[in-house]
Amino acid sequence: MAESADDRLRLLIERIERLEEEKKGISDDIKDVYNEAKATGYDAKVMRIIVRLRKMKPDDRREQECVVETYKNALGLD
Amino acid sequence: MAESADDRLRLLIERIERLEEEKKGISDDIKDVYNEAKATGYDAKVMRIIVRLRKMKPDDRREQECVVETYKNALGLD
Repeated sequence: MAESADDRLRLLIERIERLEEEKKGISDDIKDVYNEAKATGYDAKVMRIIVRLRKMKPDDRREQECVVETYKNALGLD
Repeated sequence: MAESADDRLRLLIERIERLEEEKKGISDDIKDVYNEAKATGYDAKVMRIIVRLRKMKPDDRREQECVVETYKNALGLD
């Protein structure tokens, strides 16, 4: 049976909706891990910073940390 | 063998990183579906609007559409 244009659109939208649901499920799993970490005594905010830093190339990370230091000094944050 | 605190932290971070990767994979799959839709001739921006509207409760959607109309009129968008 040939697929009508409306069916095609509906199927595309439904595929997106299923994927969005999966993505939401994973976001919830991530929240659960952070909550578990918090319950163990870890600081979830710091863990998020660490996840972000580990994603960077070491050179980029060190350079950024250096610029952060410079800006902190310029603004009197010690 | 008892798990040290450092191991525990590392395992939590690695679980988060794996989940973030899965989430990234799904985001890429979603992009692929939108690209496929575009290639078929559909407007991806409109599809995103539709996905957002379908997620809302019908009453909320209709109410929001009504408020959007009111604001549009107030600002002379016709």
